[in-house]
Amino acid sequence: FPGSLRVRLPVLILVLEVLLLLLFSLFVTYDEHAHALAQTNATDHMKNEVYRVYPFFADVQVMIFIGFACLLAFMRLYGFGGVVFNFLTATFSVQWAIIIQGFCHFYHDGKIHIGVFNFINAEFACAVVLISFGAVLGKTSPVQLLIMALLEIPIFAVTDWLIVTYLKINDAGGSIVIHIFACYFGLGVTRMLYRPSLNDGHANLTTSYQSDILSVLGTLFLWVFWPSFNSALTLPGDDQHRAIIHTFIGLSSSTLTAFALSALLDKKGKLSMSDIQNVTLAGGVTVGATVDMMVTPACAFALGVVGCCACMLGYKYLTPFMATKLKIQDQCGIHNLHGLTGLISTLAAIIAILMANEDTYGLKLQSVFPDIQPGEGRSASQQAIYQVAALGLALATSVLGGLLTGAILKLPFLSQPTDDYCFDDRVYFEVPNDFDAASTPPGPPADNLQELP
Amino acid sequence: FPGSLRVRLPVLILVLEVLLLLLFSLFVTYDEHAHALAQTNATDHMKNEVYRVYPFFADVQVMIFIGFACLLAFMRLYGFGGVVFNFLTATFSVQWAIIIQGFCHFYHDGKIHIGVFNFINAEFACAVVLISFGAVLGKTSPVQLLIMALLEIPIFAVTDWLIVTYLKINDAGGSIVIHIFACYFGLGVTRMLYRPSLNDGHANLTTSYQSDILSVLGTLFLWVFWPSFNSALTLPGDDQHRAIIHTFIGLSSSTLTAFALSALLDKKGKLSMSDIQNVTLAGGVTVGATVDMMVTPACAFALGVVGCCACMLGYKYLTPFMATKLKIQDQCGIHNLHGLTGLISTLAAIIAILMANEDTYGLKLQSVFPDIQPGEGRSASQQAIYQVAALGLALATSVLGGLLTGAILKLPFLSQPTDDYCFDDRVYFEVPNDFDAASTPPGPPADNLQELP
Amino acid sequence: FPGSLRVRLPVLILVLEVLLLLLFSLFVTYDEHAHALAQTNATDHMKNEVYRVYPFFADVQVMIFIGFACLLAFMRLYGFGGVVFNFLTATFSVQWAIIIQGFCHFYHDGKIHIGVFNFINAEFACAVVLISFGAVLGKTSPVQLLIMALLEIPIFAVTDWLIVTYLKINDAGGSIVIHIFACYFGLGVTRMLYRPSLNDGHANLTTSYQSDILSVLGTLFLWVFWPSFNSALTLPGDDQHRAIIHTFIGLSSSTLTAFALSALLDKKGKLSMSDIQNVTLAGGVTVGATVDMMVTPACAFALGVVGCCACMLGYKYLTPFMATKLKIQDQCGIHNLHGLTGLISTLAAIIAILMANEDTYGLKLQSVFPDIQPGEGRSASQQAIYQVAALGLALATSVLGGLLTGAILKLPFLSQPTDDYCFDDRVYFEVPNDFDAASTPPGPPADNLQELP
Repeated sequence: FPGSLRVRLPVLILVLEVLLLLLFSLFVTYDEHAHALAQTNATDHMKNEVYRVYPFFADVQVMIFIGFACLLAFMRLYGFGGVVFNFLTATFSVQWAIIIQGFCHFYHDGKIHIGVFNFINAEFACAVVLISFGAVLGKTSPVQLLIMALLEIPIFAVTDWLIVTYLKINDAGGSIVIHIFACYFGLGVTRMLYRPSLNDGHANLTTSYQSDILSVLGTLFLWVFWPSFNSALTLPGDDQHRAIIHTFIGLSSSTLTAFALSALLDKKGKLSMSDIQNVTLAGGVTVGATVDMMVTPACAFALGVVGCCACMLGYKYLTPFMATKLKIQDQCGIHNLHGLTGLISTLAAIIAILMANEDTYGLKLQSVFPDIQPGEGRSASQQAIYQVAALGLALATSVLGGLLTGAILKLPFLSQPTDDYCFDDRVYFEVPNDFDAASTPPGPPADNLQELP
Repeated sequence: FPGSLRVRLPVLILVLEVLLLLLFSLFVTYDEHAHALAQTNATDHMKNEVYRVYPFFADVQVMIFIGFACLLAFMRLYGFGGVVFNFLTATFSVQWAIIIQGFCHFYHDGKIHIGVFNFINAEFACAVVLISFGAVLGKTSPVQLLIMALLEIPIFAVTDWLIVTYLKINDAGGSIVIHIFACYFGLGVTRMLYRPSLNDGHANLTTSYQSDILSVLGTLFLWVFWPSFNSALTLPGDDQHRAIIHTFIGLSSSTLTAFALSALLDKKGKLSMSDIQNVTLAGGVTVGATVDMMVTPACAFALGVVGCCACMLGYKYLTPFMATKLKIQDQCGIHNLHGLTGLISTLAAIIAILMANEDTYGLKLQSVFPDIQPGEGRSASQQAIYQVAALGLALATSVLGGLLTGAILKLPFLSQPTDDYCFDDRVYFEVPNDFDAASTPPGPPADNLQELP
Repeated sequence: FPGSLRVRLPVLILVLEVLLLLLFSLFVTYDEHAHALAQTNATDHMKNEVYRVYPFFADVQVMIFIGFACLLAFMRLYGFGGVVFNFLTATFSVQWAIIIQGFCHFYHDGKIHIGVFNFINAEFACAVVLISFGAVLGKTSPVQLLIMALLEIPIFAVTDWLIVTYLKINDAGGSIVIHIFACYFGLGVTRMLYRPSLNDGHANLTTSYQSDILSVLGTLFLWVFWPSFNSALTLPGDDQHRAIIHTFIGLSSSTLTAFALSALLDKKGKLSMSDIQNVTLAGGVTVGATVDMMVTPACAFALGVVGCCACMLGYKYLTPFMATKLKIQDQCGIHNLHGLTGLISTLAAIIAILMANEDTYGLKLQSVFPDIQPGEGRSASQQAIYQVAALGLALATSVLGGLLTGAILKLPFLSQPTDDYCFDDRVYFEVPNDFDAASTPPGPPADNLQELP
């Protein structure tokens, strides 16, 4: 069977591990918070950066390895694939990002200096890959996913480095750098992997009672720890505090809105689990670019509502349109949850920057205009232009990078499943005996109530 | 179909969101830990309150949105309802509580000043609503649940404010303020929503193998983070330390006891999952009112055992009696897990207060007698009387509030399900094809062993 | 039915609880971080040890009560047993360890002084019991499991005390003290409980689609929080920081390796869920004994790869050999995941110690040679010998203790299930109606693809 991983996956992983081990051996050492020689008896060991960073790192870990895993396991016959390929892709992505980002940000004296702080940055790069993964879920082999990560991480890292180093924008939650980049990269990949037959639907594209519950639990893990995600890289103190407040409020308002729209847009007035699983999270992205600014809690609430509406309408109308007309088959609708919301967040940040002033920020104004210094400070309008430039750069590199990566993923021998075998765990996994039962659902849809006594 | 949410849920949520947005816009601003203007270059940003409060907030978040969700998903055909309606109710309750509690506790200079600290308080108010929710699980529509939260939060907040401001009692774990109030409010509501036919049982009132496992995982999430819940609002330092110690020990002893009683009270000598899911948690409530006092670890252990016994006997004998004789149908048995245990905890606190003295507490004695000050200090017996007064107040407002709320929930057009459609996800959700399989369990109970080889 | 718990479990638990309550009453008091009298107004309450220790304790709690629970629930008909017996055994083990370790380490002035720090130590003792539990999963009654914990905790505590007090070895992650001891103790027990018929397989020894997913989620919880486990008891500061770094890198490299080997060693080139569930974690143990040393990140990466290979080959070839030839039936393959990896880790630590010098560690060298002091300091080779001595001691006490415990568990009246009733929840639990469906899987293995269109 062409999809067999027997030779290809081990060979690819072996190559990647030798590469990683080589790079770790040659270039990676501890940073001053993790190196014994950097310590003196005078050190107050509890001042070590690890104590400030690790709690946020642990929360993001739960999001990446458990939240994403469960959320992606929503398909009736692709639960193993959702959880396990997320595990594989994430694990490689983080290690690879530690190296690549290391050369960009933490390289001096011929060494990459690492600590837990690097790990958080690497997990953000990993989140980028997993978001893009959502566009091709069930249509790609683990071999393809590893190659996608191999290519996406460097393209992302360089884009991120350019934005952080030269453009110095406000984007604490990563709405531009993470979500928009990840979304359009993923769309580029799935555009190249276009499968005409899937536009007629696919027998495996349904959920089960258990998979729907598992998936919404993934949503809840992401929901609960999203404030840690959006605040992990802000300035400590009130900035980080605001990031937590805004994320929580934005998520809450988008959740309420999602319930309302889900019932409203369903002809029977029933709630759809896929709306609950995805649209409720829109607010977390929408507040991202302004998450640490003085935008008021009410504004965070409003952003959650607006982002949720855009996301919901996207799922309803834009995703089908893109699949049929633009040949962009966005499996998990990442364009709705990460793209549209990211664009709204970018716009909100520009407005917030134009309105920022000393009366609101006092001495903290420089956190809005990072470059502000005697002589070379930026004006609000200048900063706004930098934000737009960052958006343009992210869009350009992600689309081009995605298309290029997609083209490479079409190479033969990457174990890509044929159309019939999409969204099917049997292709890549030994499955238990009851898989058949799962694969043959009993009869027609069950949600007609007259069946009841 | 009368249960349709198509118009009612969106309209209600729209109204609530407009209300929330209006109140946020007019009254909500940042507190000094989250406001940029309150910061100076001199500030040590790591001293920001957020670093003390956020870890406990995150733990409570997991309990509210994941622990409760899984625990409530124990029914075979109501897994979506358990997880998703918990999500909706909790999300609205927290936002609503931020406003209402804000006016009670954090309102000055014409503004409600918020930070993560407010969020913890709001999550406690949210826990109150979710506990009450347990009494009417599966018998109420999301419209009714939102209206219940809309009414319960203010009644709770005012009761809480009166107790904290004037009675100044010892109740760090909220056994009186949270658990007893939530329990009797919920019983009041379910009394008004009495459904005679349900006393003859209901076809949907069974569990499935998967729903039992999911539910016990919810128990474990609550169990693991309960120490954070009971210690989140204590004084920092040794008080908080004791709260963690006592909660962990109390939960452990009640868990061991629950296993013993579950096997003992079953005629076949088998363990019942519903006992493991609920009764094991009794200790967390029972230690609540004395959780930060110098009651000795042995006392926490004993409280866990006593609370567990009361809880177990309540499930076995009191719940059926209340359903048939008092017309109080307590779906999840909240009276056993939160009511009886809360009363025991209240009594324990009174005894602990009467025994408190300088020899045990030293300078910390004032944490037991909050009002202690030159001239107007309280004696132990006075403090004990205040505890009783708080109990009486909580009982009165919760029962009356619950009955009133229940009466309002009986209004037409709130999409309340008819008896036949109780505990059935099909009423409010698009369900997957395999729901039928779930809804028609194969044959008779399976736990007779002669069926085995 | 002989397996009935009706009398035996309640009686045993009653005895254990009376014992615990007695010991708590007579000997347990608060340590200086939890005792009110130890506080003065001058105290900075945030300096209380609880704030340094509790976050790590909470993470380990999730591993013990949720991670282990899910991982052990991989069997189709033993999901209740996996989750619930883990809950019971863990709860008793922690309480029992608080007492026993208390007498070993925290006993002075006639009292055991406890705080959250004791709880972390107790959870490690608990992890030891749960690892041993893996060897006899599904073949032992809860009565037997409690007696196993009752005996294993003291034997472990004394071994641990001897090693910590006199041998003073480097083993921050507990590869020797925890994993090797737990593994060989468990093998000793299962050797005594040898069941010849099980070597011909057992009808219940299969997984289901849901149980495989649940189990891998347990793996992910363990994976995510393992860095907290390995770093919880290191020196604060850079040592703890390195422990986190090494654990994360070691887990990542072993995860990648596990995917490669799983596909390579399967004749169809498919991934096996049991490999993903178990072998991915090998790196966490393998880095354990050197986890806080200056071994370089590359070394942690290499250790993860080596440990994973040993673990995978162990599952493939050693476990069957031990079951048939040595009459050691290792149900969960703990010898692969904890034994082989622990031995590799021990060897790595010896090499790392022999290579340790001032140029690498500077003033921190004493953390490698704990006893280093004017006059009586140890040399590297001396320290290496102590490591070997600790390994020998752990092996001796665990094997002997395990065999002794196993012999005692064979006593009658401990509700041990007969061969037919192994791995079957019906023996000890009231099961829901759909259990039959679960217990009769539809037809033959389903992973042949020609069945698809």
